[in-house]
Amino acid sequence: MKDVAARAGVGLKTVSRVVNGEPGVTADTERRVQEAIEALGFRRNDSARVLRKGRTASIGLVLEDLANPFYGPLSRAVEEVARAHGALLINGSSAEDPGREQELVLAFCARRVDGLIVIPAGTDHRYLEPELRAGVATVFVDRPAGRIEVDTVLTDSFGGARAGVAHLIAHGHRRIGFIGDQPRIHTAVERLRGYRAAMADAGLAVADGWVSLGSTEPGRVREALAAMLAGPDPVTALFAGNNRVTVTAVRELAGRSRPVALVSFDDIELADLLGITVVAQDSAALGRTAAERLFRRLDGSGEPPARLELPTRLIPRGSGELPPA
Amino acid sequence: MKDVAARAGVGLKTVSRVVNGEPGVTADTERRVQEAIEALGFRRNDSARVLRKGRTASIGLVLEDLANPFYGPLSRAVEEVARAHGALLINGSSAEDPGREQELVLAFCARRVDGLIVIPAGTDHRYLEPELRAGVATVFVDRPAGRIEVDTVLTDSFGGARAGVAHLIAHGHRRIGFIGDQPRIHTAVERLRGYRAAMADAGLAVADGWVSLGSTEPGRVREALAAMLAGPDPVTALFAGNNRVTVTAVRELAGRSRPVALVSFDDIELADLLGITVVAQDSAALGRTAAERLFRRLDGSGEPPARLELPTRLIPRGSGELPPA
Repeated sequence: MKDVAARAGVGLKTVSRVVNGEPGVTADTERRVQEAIEALGFRRNDSARVLRKGRTASIGLVLEDLANPFYGPLSRAVEEVARAHGALLINGSSAEDPGREQELVLAFCARRVDGLIVIPAGTDHRYLEPELRAGVATVFVDRPAGRIEVDTVLTDSFGGARAGVAHLIAHGHRRIGFIGDQPRIHTAVERLRGYRAAMADAGLAVADGWVSLGSTEPGRVREALAAMLAGPDPVTALFAGNNRVTVTAVRELAGRSRPVALVSFDDIELADLLGITVVAQDSAALGRTAAERLFRRLDGSGEPPARLELPTRLIPRGSGELPPA
Repeated sequence: MKDVAARAGVGLKTVSRVVNGEPGVTADTERRVQEAIEALGFRRNDSARVLRKGRTASIGLVLEDLANPFYGPLSRAVEEVARAHGALLINGSSAEDPGREQELVLAFCARRVDGLIVIPAGTDHRYLEPELRAGVATVFVDRPAGRIEVDTVLTDSFGGARAGVAHLIAHGHRRIGFIGDQPRIHTAVERLRGYRAAMADAGLAVADGWVSLGSTEPGRVREALAAMLAGPDPVTALFAGNNRVTVTAVRELAGRSRPVALVSFDDIELADLLGITVVAQDSAALGRTAAERLFRRLDGSGEPPARLELPTRLIPRGSGELPPA
């Protein structure tokens, strides 16, 4: 880039602007920079860093589960941004195992990825400190990092769950169950907090038996739901803490004679046809926002680490508008 | 390997044994082979190579679309096999663009992946010949390679579609539509061939207007379906050529007063609750089979390239058992 700047007779920042398609460059200057680029055979895989290394850039993406449909649009969005920057995507699943997350992240670093996007399974990420010092750009997405300061892109889980539960309360429910993911997962805890806030807002007490956090395996969710629906004071509505819980809950509730209202955190394909009311998060926007932030860092942005929260959207489709049985 | 064998004064098989850590080699022979390896800087495409290079092995997986839920279980299965072999997964989508497929494959090769698993978008893969000669193990999955001989793992698209259409015929349908993916995609053509075979088996003619191949975008599928359902001789049943077609068809048919029978090639999450009869393929088994084959090659298996076909499973759930309106 220095050579291009010298040949075009402009500053480094101007070359950067032209290459990134940013405004603030006159047509004449842009032409001169482009000519210098042509003349020098300068090819940019986006980050200047890639140029220096003379190899294809790559970014590592650690997900929780490659097979969970929630991560499909997220991965795809990360890939599209990476592709626009000439970078390849290295992918892996932690399967909710903090040890495996760390192993993957460090294996990616050993492969000298230029950047990392992490959906963490663990809660202590100090193992990343040497890598961060060595300049590996890192963005956490969907769940925050623990004990390190890095860019983070989250969905507003608290606000989304609070709105979803308030929706059930507005439709007359007083006994509402909450089934969520494991308590060490940030989103599970935030959504539970949203549930509790909505109940408190309405002056409703929460019985112990109405809340269940744990594995999202069908058997565990089935049992938790059966317990909430049994006994003298069964719940009349359920707030499902994520798409995996919803799939099992929808199957279980379909077989019931007494209708139970349902709001799902996360949308699901064909949920419109099944009439499932959801608090939708934009999985593609999470991926895109995280990846764009990562590439801005790779381009040398020196901003301090930030935490971005994307809003949710409540989509009423019938199941969340059922009155108490 | 020949050079190593010559220098160590042993046969090729012995070198292979040492490199693969197999038994049947004396300590002295092993030492001689190791010395020859050191001296010649011999590098090999598998775990031994990884050890010596001090880097993690990796395999590249080129999909059509990271966001299509069909590929989730496939990717996950490939990842699990790779992980069991200590290898990382590099991922990318072709977005059905043969140029982008080639670009990704070659970018992966430039990053020196040890092996490739490809769901191709294109039909001519001679661009891979230099890489194959250089020893990059390659397996095609879901769709075959064009003009090169490589291991291929497919679903029995022809047999699956034939069985699905025969199922509709057995339930009394004579006018059956087929909406599939673009005609350059192998699976689309095979499934259409299965449809035609089932119709021919039953002595039924296929009207021109009953078959439509093209993009699986909702708008295109909607139009094709509307055309088949209009006019004096509308179809009474539809065979949907893949999960993307099915999602749109289910939405469109849900709004119709006159019921139209439907069988879907591919299962979809919650299709059980919607009563959608499907010809299910095992996406995880495709990924696992392809990855296992790849790692057998990386471990030095010298078998000739083979073509494996996995069976489908017809799951009746209601939509395929509706009689003609």
